[in-house]
Amino acid sequence: MTRIAIYPGSFDPVTRGHEDIIRRSLAFADKLVVAVAVNLSKQPLFTLEERLDLLREVLQEFEGVEIRWFDGLLAKFAQKNNASLVIRGLRAVSDFEYEFQMALMNRQLFSELETVFLTPAVDLTFLSSSLVREVAELGGDVSDFVHPAVGRALAEKFA
Amino acid sequence: MTRIAIYPGSFDPVTRGHEDIIRRSLAFADKLVVAVAVNLSKQPLFTLEERLDLLREVLQEFEGVEIRWFDGLLAKFAQKNNASLVIRGLRAVSDFEYEFQMALMNRQLFSELETVFLTPAVDLTFLSSSLVREVAELGGDVSDFVHPAVGRALAEKFA
Amino acid sequence: MTRIAIYPGSFDPVTRGHEDIIRRSLAFADKLVVAVAVNLSKQPLFTLEERLDLLREVLQEFEGVEIRWFDGLLAKFAQKNNASLVIRGLRAVSDFEYEFQMALMNRQLFSELETVFLTPAVDLTFLSSSLVREVAELGGDVSDFVHPAVGRALAEKFA
Amino acid sequence: MTRIAIYPGSFDPVTRGHEDIIRRSLAFADKLVVAVAVNLSKQPLFTLEERLDLLREVLQEFEGVEIRWFDGLLAKFAQKNNASLVIRGLRAVSDFEYEFQMALMNRQLFSELETVFLTPAVDLTFLSSSLVREVAELGGDVSDFVHPAVGRALAEKFA
Amino acid sequence: MTRIAIYPGSFDPVTRGHEDIIRRSLAFADKLVVAVAVNLSKQPLFTLEERLDLLREVLQEFEGVEIRWFDGLLAKFAQKNNASLVIRGLRAVSDFEYEFQMALMNRQLFSELETVFLTPAVDLTFLSSSLVREVAELGGDVSDFVHPAVGRALAEKFA
Amino acid sequence: MTRIAIYPGSFDPVTRGHEDIIRRSLAFADKLVVAVAVNLSKQPLFTLEERLDLLREVLQEFEGVEIRWFDGLLAKFAQKNNASLVIRGLRAVSDFEYEFQMALMNRQLFSELETVFLTPAVDLTFLSSSLVREVAELGGDVSDFVHPAVGRALAEKFA
Repeated sequence: MTRIAIYPGSFDPVTRGHEDIIRRSLAFADKLVVAVAVNLSKQPLFTLEERLDLLREVLQEFEGVEIRWFDGLLAKFAQKNNASLVIRGLRAVSDFEYEFQMALMNRQLFSELETVFLTPAVDLTFLSSSLVREVAELGGDVSDFVHPAVGRALAEKFA
Repeated sequence: MTRIAIYPGSFDPVTRGHEDIIRRSLAFADKLVVAVAVNLSKQPLFTLEERLDLLREVLQEFEGVEIRWFDGLLAKFAQKNNASLVIRGLRAVSDFEYEFQMALMNRQLFSELETVFLTPAVDLTFLSSSLVREVAELGGDVSDFVHPAVGRALAEKFA
Repeated sequence: MTRIAIYPGSFDPVTRGHEDIIRRSLAFADKLVVAVAVNLSKQPLFTLEERLDLLREVLQEFEGVEIRWFDGLLAKFAQKNNASLVIRGLRAVSDFEYEFQMALMNRQLFSELETVFLTPAVDLTFLSSSLVREVAELGGDVSDFVHPAVGRALAEKFA
Repeated sequence: MTRIAIYPGSFDPVTRGHEDIIRRSLAFADKLVVAVAVNLSKQPLFTLEERLDLLREVLQEFEGVEIRWFDGLLAKFAQKNNASLVIRGLRAVSDFEYEFQMALMNRQLFSELETVFLTPAVDLTFLSSSLVREVAELGGDVSDFVHPAVGRALAEKFA
Repeated sequence: MTRIAIYPGSFDPVTRGHEDIIRRSLAFADKLVVAVAVNLSKQPLFTLEERLDLLREVLQEFEGVEIRWFDGLLAKFAQKNNASLVIRGLRAVSDFEYEFQMALMNRQLFSELETVFLTPAVDLTFLSSSLVREVAELGGDVSDFVHPAVGRALAEKFA
Repeated sequence: MTRIAIYPGSFDPVTRGHEDIIRRSLAFADKLVVAVAVNLSKQPLFTLEERLDLLREVLQEFEGVEIRWFDGLLAKFAQKNNASLVIRGLRAVSDFEYEFQMALMNRQLFSELETVFLTPAVDLTFLSSSLVREVAELGGDVSDFVHPAVGRALAEKFA
């Protein structure tokens, strides 16, 4: 049995917190699909292509990881990819009830799909992409929170 | 004493969760005014007229229910309707503190107005109109969550 | 239809917060049974008889209120009293998830039984019997939080 | 790679909620050790032997499950069993922050040990062993919440 | 040692809750900088100039208070002002996790900067500028929640 | 004006988290009274004398700190010590509503007494004395979480 897991998100941009969750997921998934969600109603800072490029650079050393994008229902994308697990990081700033709601809805739509919540390293517990964007935009130093490639991309964006 | 209760909301669209709360409210209210809020700052999926029509179809079997709309303060609308109770469903995904805040403000504005929180059936605890809209837009099956008439209306909207 | 509601609790002792919820309940219940729970596993400060006496003194002006005690399942006690509503006050220090759990269990055990949550007056939002006991035991002034009769009973207990 | 997971708990007694989590865990663990914690400071309703017997009866159809007990640190027990995953069910009544705290501590004590949180079926979201014990003790019907063998054991305990 | 504290916010408009926190802060800060945040992505009801004017009128009796505005990082503004404390009011409707996240980020950006959370008077616990704006816009009476000068400004805005 | 602050707690035993909060408090308090609460209803692991001794050893380098004990009301102890501030650390595992309740009660009992909440270093966010006791009792390594003197005392206790 090959266990395929999906880690969905906006990754706008990918942070050290995402990297941490991806590393942990590989302890029990044989293959991990990092799936960039195309959300037409939110205006991202980085384009889909930029987000995919940053993920490719940041995750190049990870084995067993595939980087893809999807629009539409996560449950359908999971089914098409033969994935049985959805990975979510549970940060202290998570909207826990929303996570619960989505896990139950995804199971309703595709009963084989189990959502698995992981805890990040403690010093990444309060990190989020939106906080990174906000601090970078205001000229703060985010080098502790993102890969150098992402730091450069943020610097260019806000130059 | 005739106990008149108001159940305010966007009902965009009405879900099985709303129906459940309405049924429960009728156990202690003599008349229930289902009150569609016109919120100019939010762009609804269904127009006010469509939302009222769907409510009329979904609730046609319920006795003691009136369907209305209001803009402005809920407290004033309640006073005009001689209502003494506001009904709110407490889902697990409720913003509980916000509900508390609104209940206290409504009492401040009209001291006779009591807010009463009810618990929906357990399998409807995680349901919300916004989740229904989101899943329907992406082509997911929402027939377990809404009345068939609402299901048809969603299908047309996203055709 | 006579609407009978039950307001269960330890009332060890009754506080201004309880009085507030009782007053509000009478706006939509025809009869309110204030039901003192006999919990053998918790050692109360006041005996059952003392708690009933204090309730009788504090609530003597309220019409439509009956004061009783029960052991065993609340759902059975409600059924025996033809009650269709359980009243709970939702304080900011409520264990909200526990309240949810009990409301769902009581409905499971007696499907006609609806739990109704009310919001106390804002300045009573943080009040609890256990805080009153704790402060009174340490010699603090609790006269703002309890009826004078309760204040006297506390003073005697801790003399 | 054989993925060994541990599902620790008091199982006092095992509920339908536990069974549900065990079933879900087997979708990604090759072997699941159901580990009954011996907690000397809490007085259980069922003895360790009774809890192990009930688990054996309830879980006899599950393949890949081993039933054990442990005292001392979970992290050490996991290490001795070559387990890399700890399974926890995230009920709506979970003490979420406590779960977070334990997951971080277990990782601190044994860095290879990942805690994985799963969501139970929605109608089991509010279930807990302590609620089952409480209702059974008061004579309520718990047959929807536990396996018939557990129901019989509860009936005998409270006869 | 002169202890300089900063109280940042939108103050759109200043409420009795803000005044309360400012009064309490002066018990341990030698100088308090009330700092109006210029947030380009949110459209305020009152212009920056109006918000500063209202603060000046409302706070004219307070000694040791300076009113300023800032854009960019709070941590940098604090450093420039030799401030060692950031003041935040912890209302019951606070997004507590967000507050935690910001406090940790500000410390990361400027390690000398300590965030200090204060509790407002209990009857102001549920108050927020956005609720005041919403109620005033709908014609409700907000005179209990804001200084008369703010009440007049709101009335003019929504005339 | 000399600002005197009180940091109350059980300190059973003092952890690196407590030390962190004490260090931060000294940034704005001229004198800090670390006040060990004598709670007769809880059986501590360390006697009052042991807890005071450990605090003296752990805090010997801190200037401006006094170590005392108190029973009875914190508000009275604060008043007797001319303290105007109560310090509380806000961990992610704090019972936040309880903290709010105590802050409001202490202000009610002594209106000059302001409670100030501080955020610990992020890696201490999930630490608590009870977790340290639990892990040490089970033979786990707690040297990252407590001062060496406390580690030795725990080892002796559980030898």
